[in-house]
Amino acid sequence: MSASSGLPPRPSVGVSTMLARTVQMRGSHVGVIFGEEQRTWSEYADRVASAAGALRNLGVREGDRVAILSLTNMPYFELLAAVPHAGGIVVPLNWRWSVPELLDAVADCEPTVLLFDHTMAAAGRELAQARPEMKTVALSEGFGDLPYYAQLVADAEPVADAGRGGDDVYQLGYTGGTTGRSKAAMLSHRNVVSEATYCWAEGFLREDAVYLVNGPMFHAAGTWPSLSIIGSGGTAVLMAQFEPLEALKLIEAHGITETLLVPTAIQLMVEHPEFAAFDTSSLGKVLYGAAPITATLLDKASAALPHSQFIQCYGMTELSPVCAVLPHAFLEGEHRAKGRNRAAGRAIPAVQIKIVDENDNEVPRGEVGEVAVRGETMMLGYWRRPEETAEALRGGWMHTGDGGYMDEFGLVYVVDRVKDMIISGGENIYSTEVENAVASHPAVRQVAVIGIPHEKWGESVHAIIRIHDGVQVTEIEIIEHVRTQIAGYKTPRSITFFDGEFPVSPANKVLKRELRRPYWEGRQKAII
Amino acid sequence: MSASSGLPPRPSVGVSTMLARTVQMRGSHVGVIFGEEQRTWSEYADRVASAAGALRNLGVREGDRVAILSLTNMPYFELLAAVPHAGGIVVPLNWRWSVPELLDAVADCEPTVLLFDHTMAAAGRELAQARPEMKTVALSEGFGDLPYYAQLVADAEPVADAGRGGDDVYQLGYTGGTTGRSKAAMLSHRNVVSEATYCWAEGFLREDAVYLVNGPMFHAAGTWPSLSIIGSGGTAVLMAQFEPLEALKLIEAHGITETLLVPTAIQLMVEHPEFAAFDTSSLGKVLYGAAPITATLLDKASAALPHSQFIQCYGMTELSPVCAVLPHAFLEGEHRAKGRNRAAGRAIPAVQIKIVDENDNEVPRGEVGEVAVRGETMMLGYWRRPEETAEALRGGWMHTGDGGYMDEFGLVYVVDRVKDMIISGGENIYSTEVENAVASHPAVRQVAVIGIPHEKWGESVHAIIRIHDGVQVTEIEIIEHVRTQIAGYKTPRSITFFDGEFPVSPANKVLKRELRRPYWEGRQKAII
Repeated sequence: MSASSGLPPRPSVGVSTMLARTVQMRGSHVGVIFGEEQRTWSEYADRVASAAGALRNLGVREGDRVAILSLTNMPYFELLAAVPHAGGIVVPLNWRWSVPELLDAVADCEPTVLLFDHTMAAAGRELAQARPEMKTVALSEGFGDLPYYAQLVADAEPVADAGRGGDDVYQLGYTGGTTGRSKAAMLSHRNVVSEATYCWAEGFLREDAVYLVNGPMFHAAGTWPSLSIIGSGGTAVLMAQFEPLEALKLIEAHGITETLLVPTAIQLMVEHPEFAAFDTSSLGKVLYGAAPITATLLDKASAALPHSQFIQCYGMTELSPVCAVLPHAFLEGEHRAKGRNRAAGRAIPAVQIKIVDENDNEVPRGEVGEVAVRGETMMLGYWRRPEETAEALRGGWMHTGDGGYMDEFGLVYVVDRVKDMIISGGENIYSTEVENAVASHPAVRQVAVIGIPHEKWGESVHAIIRIHDGVQVTEIEIIEHVRTQIAGYKTPRSITFFDGEFPVSPANKVLKRELRRPYWEGRQKAII
Repeated sequence: MSASSGLPPRPSVGVSTMLARTVQMRGSHVGVIFGEEQRTWSEYADRVASAAGALRNLGVREGDRVAILSLTNMPYFELLAAVPHAGGIVVPLNWRWSVPELLDAVADCEPTVLLFDHTMAAAGRELAQARPEMKTVALSEGFGDLPYYAQLVADAEPVADAGRGGDDVYQLGYTGGTTGRSKAAMLSHRNVVSEATYCWAEGFLREDAVYLVNGPMFHAAGTWPSLSIIGSGGTAVLMAQFEPLEALKLIEAHGITETLLVPTAIQLMVEHPEFAAFDTSSLGKVLYGAAPITATLLDKASAALPHSQFIQCYGMTELSPVCAVLPHAFLEGEHRAKGRNRAAGRAIPAVQIKIVDENDNEVPRGEVGEVAVRGETMMLGYWRRPEETAEALRGGWMHTGDGGYMDEFGLVYVVDRVKDMIISGGENIYSTEVENAVASHPAVRQVAVIGIPHEKWGESVHAIIRIHDGVQVTEIEIIEHVRTQIAGYKTPRSITFFDGEFPVSPANKVLKRELRRPYWEGRQKAII
């Protein structure tokens, strides 16, 4: 029996109910710090109610979008709770995007209000001009002609919470556009609350955390930990954007206990010439994501941060975002000897992961297929894209587009993007594995491996290579080198030397579809 | 905007999806132990699929109730997952109930199948006779005329999971009947999954737990930790029922790390003459519930179990069941000096608690009102009781019936059942406080304090007392003693000496409504 219509409505958990609990338990605890400013959770909640009043005064009504184009700062952190309190949907815009990309996004989501800071003034003004029906607010002082956020909040009466929660949309998360025009994942209140509670269950972002928010707010790496800290009643220390020396200063100054870093950022920190001058002993947990950590970097980082556990988080915006975590134990001892440190992680609580073939049937343990995920953290769908939603969520599972396999511990190993896998003579070949082998040749500066059409094998392995300035190398030399690294059938059959820059996405990922296009004109690649 | 009907259906978390994840990650880990039997999670899941096949063969279809009348054992633990796997709803029956009470329950929930063990054979057979359309199965061997569970499972083919989850009913939990005929709380799959994840976030019942299931399965103290362990992939060690010496043996034999005990059980264990003979050092966490722990018992238990944290869990069946937890830190140091060890706890993750007056308005911090709770763990409602459901869940909050107040840490202190509070001359008087004062007189064996009608004050405080055999005491002596303990307005104005046993509920609670009845005939008590 399902809950029938005769039953009372279900309680509606959301960002506001999480904050209410935090204020109840931890009202006098310092909740957020940015530069010289700090607020207790009670002060934060008061600001949120007034900021929501200001948004209502600007015309924000139930379900309206409120777009934000700004580096991380105190008002941004307020808006994460103030927008839903006012009844709205948070739309963090990507400040790395070009103006045409931003214009596309605001045309897509039609925000009632846009807020931007001084660092985004030029783009913000262009958006305002292009979309005059949108109210525009400056988050920073000094834009005399525009309403100033802090003044609007000071002038506004606090308002009652709009009561959004459950399956109401909390946020539109525009996803990185390596596959054409960006689309926005609709994350519900239940999505983000579930994600927060599952992370607490995994042992991080809890009430005792002093968390350094260094990821941009337009990325889940910024919003997700921020919301989780709002829910747990820990402390969030904000950085406008990541910078290794500043991060070290903040770790020491505030006794940061946890932060999420991409491996490159870990490297920048531990290799920083002034690293040793800072006390980083408070940093008990380093979450990392976006890429597995290499054994070399792990060893270096572990030596530099002997008090830290390193915990990988794997996911994507559509999954709120983390769906798998690799506990520190898998980086050590027998697990490491067996290469389990290379795994992306295993399912977080109440989330399910399976590996499926092209017909969505689960493949046996150890075989490669597409990583599919479901749970309370799975997005509602893409904003105003029913077809892409139906495709991504077919069968009720989010199809990540990642190719991978699962071992006997439920650990998922990502081998490639599904669309970048090459099938040659019936064998699956993972472009990333081939790329690693090619890149180990000293002449190679950058490489992209793709499948190109082949009459007999379906596809054949092809490497596109940029070489270092002033070196000389032949196709044969590269191929012979690669053959010493990986199996013959994975070795490139052909090589192109590429001059100039590879085409990249706004998120700086190589656009392999652009590289593949000339070879596939008028044909259909086996897996897309 | 809410998730519109154009969006794909939401993923359906439930007991089956939790188990699937556990098998994926912890398949070869020992999941459950009972006596000499033990099963890995993979073995357990295989049994569950076959047991579900057996239930289908017995006619269990989507939404059918499957009632179980049994002490805790291996088949019971299997059925917790097998019943939903088959599409059914678990109905644990209270084996402390009389046959008429059990007959009431099966008439209420109309089970398709009843399973009972040898300890419940007499009652089981009576139920079977009274309800011939119900299939009856013996969980124990030796009932030649009845189908034997283990044989049915051995003969059945494993079946695919029915896919129940989300707002589908997982369980009917019959609640203790101090207020008339028992009613069943409908707990959904999302309820029990949410409860499990919140407990992991609070730090217990996680994958590293070796948990001693000592509470009866007809009570949430049995099912809730069992389901949480199924979800986390820890280990459950089962006891047929609590017995202090057996509990000590199991703690030592299996290295039990956590268990839930009522304070009385803690006392029975630590005061057991053979206590010192057992190694209890593995027991890192003692969860306790049903009553606050006295300082005396806490000190004694802490000395006996120096490695244990003591963590109070407060809740009720309708809340799946725990809604508040008192972390160990509140039992020590300044917190204890300020009496915070007497609190019931503070809201678990993503759950909200507020204290409301009789009009459901929140009262200021520190004032007494009724404890109201909401969140994903709140029951769907009472089975086939729309009026009682609407009353209990009015405004979307579960009204616990407990009177209490909240402090600046969000800690809830329960002072009395709301219906047992006395309002005299506009002052709230908590019967439990008066009872404690009366009970401190050495002549008093048992006492119940109630409000009786009073023309001027509305109610007046009245004590009903049983005295020890062979002692003599006057009304005046008692009242003078109480006046030295508590404020004058709380002191009983009148006393009745009671001969015989107080009327009690099946759960052994004194039925104050029975004691009040003669005084209130034809009148309306202020608070019911």
